[in-house]
Amino acid sequence: MDWVQNIEAAGNRIAGHVRRTPVGLLDLPGLAHPIEVKWEQMQHTGSFKARGAFNTLLNGPVPRAGLVAASGGNHGAAVAHAARSLGHDARIYVPEIAGPTKISLIRDLGADLVVVPGAYAEAAERAAEWQKATGAAQIHAYDAPDTVAGQGTCLREWEDQGLQADTVLIAVGGGGLIGGAIGWLAGRRKVVAVEPANAPTLNTALAKGAPAPVEVSGVAANALGAKQIGQICFDLAQAQGIESVLVKDRDITAAQHWLWKSARQLVEPAGAAALAALMSGAYTPAPDERVAVLVCGGNIAPDPLA
Amino acid sequence: MDWVQNIEAAGNRIAGHVRRTPVGLLDLPGLAHPIEVKWEQMQHTGSFKARGAFNTLLNGPVPRAGLVAASGGNHGAAVAHAARSLGHDARIYVPEIAGPTKISLIRDLGADLVVVPGAYAEAAERAAEWQKATGAAQIHAYDAPDTVAGQGTCLREWEDQGLQADTVLIAVGGGGLIGGAIGWLAGRRKVVAVEPANAPTLNTALAKGAPAPVEVSGVAANALGAKQIGQICFDLAQAQGIESVLVKDRDITAAQHWLWKSARQLVEPAGAAALAALMSGAYTPAPDERVAVLVCGGNIAPDPLA
Repeated sequence: MDWVQNIEAAGNRIAGHVRRTPVGLLDLPGLAHPIEVKWEQMQHTGSFKARGAFNTLLNGPVPRAGLVAASGGNHGAAVAHAARSLGHDARIYVPEIAGPTKISLIRDLGADLVVVPGAYAEAAERAAEWQKATGAAQIHAYDAPDTVAGQGTCLREWEDQGLQADTVLIAVGGGGLIGGAIGWLAGRRKVVAVEPANAPTLNTALAKGAPAPVEVSGVAANALGAKQIGQICFDLAQAQGIESVLVKDRDITAAQHWLWKSARQLVEPAGAAALAALMSGAYTPAPDERVAVLVCGGNIAPDPLA
Repeated sequence: MDWVQNIEAAGNRIAGHVRRTPVGLLDLPGLAHPIEVKWEQMQHTGSFKARGAFNTLLNGPVPRAGLVAASGGNHGAAVAHAARSLGHDARIYVPEIAGPTKISLIRDLGADLVVVPGAYAEAAERAAEWQKATGAAQIHAYDAPDTVAGQGTCLREWEDQGLQADTVLIAVGGGGLIGGAIGWLAGRRKVVAVEPANAPTLNTALAKGAPAPVEVSGVAANALGAKQIGQICFDLAQAQGIESVLVKDRDITAAQHWLWKSARQLVEPAGAAALAALMSGAYTPAPDERVAVLVCGGNIAPDPLA
């Protein structure tokens, strides 16, 4: 697969449907250089997921039965938004652990929503059944080429905005975003994968040499809690020898607090995970290494204005 | 006074001390063109006020007695931050109406803080007494040339970032920010002054032909609740025939909610006031008029992570 070409095409395809999210610099205590930040939580529906959803919908025929997706929250919101925006029906299976804030977000976007007891795997089973019964198209949350290419446009856009960093830190759930990033960057910059110690899907897979199910829990579980890393991401990460680091829940929370205190950015735990790796020392850059952090999601619960 | 030259000098002076805040585009329901937004609430201490504070401190000798300021909150936080950052003492008089969130923000910045019963005017009196007794330098929150020139750097920066708009909407409290904006733009773009109907300092002054005290109240009072417009701002606004519009508290709140829902930006009421003018129809652009909104402050209460 030529990821660079696919991501280039995805970027052109989704232009006008997704937001070009702002970038900026932040001084982080203890680091010699300011870090570059991309505020991708300002994307439509509050995360990068809109990129993959629009790319998938715009890149193929959508059946009359519409779309179906299973999602811990952010992917479901993105599919609901993209479907409504392009005039398709969408049925979204959401696991109960997504929590009331993400569930209402999706409901407000006009999707036909089904809340499934349990975690992501149960919702995914129900989505597969619906797909079989109706012929609706399923948009995978992370392990499909169009999804990965869509998410990869985030890095393409960042480079177009003047990204300077030697190294980009990216949070990992199922691997759609980091897969796209690795595919786009193709070794031109170092990518560091950051996962909660409570949801180490890529870390475990790299250690075992293959994707394998892991137990997931913790503050970021409803966004980074895929049970197993996607094959596309795994293959890309393994081939490029991506460095994988783990962060504790309390470091994620500390990074969330720092983002609010220092830059008035209120993000969900997953959105602060990559920064947590720098702040906690889980990843320590070399003295002259320039580092960038992708802030990927802002759907914090509870809704601060509810 | 050559405002353009002063603001140019201020911009060079404070570079490296203030943050170059991000800009972006947002689609607003009912408008033909996307609006340009500058996210100045991401500035150090959560508002544009850091610009005026650094410009004042860096542009003159600071007495050994240090600094004194009276502030409803954001100016006090900015002075405390700039003073600490440059190694000066700062005594800040804060009116009780600033509320616990802004008061702890200032305390956490290391200032010698005095909470004064009542509103801004009482705090200003106490600051003046301290200045007289100790020789500390007072940094006025809005009606001093160095303050206005510092705030004006926000528009200089925005133009450097590619501002396209014909018209810029800016919230008004005492007039430091809009004064600097009018001074910098010098008629090259239209400036619209937005005030809460509950704190119409500039609107009243323009109607009466001179600054006059007004009653202030409402959701944005601790940021936009100066009792009287500054003379510098008034002279600039009157000379250029600036259009002044008023927004209701409920429109400000609706704009706050929209910013969170649409772009995951949680701002204080004052930060949403300029947008409220567009959303409520208090200001209606012509069909081909390109509009920009300055989001000026993010110090919302209560602290969403407290």
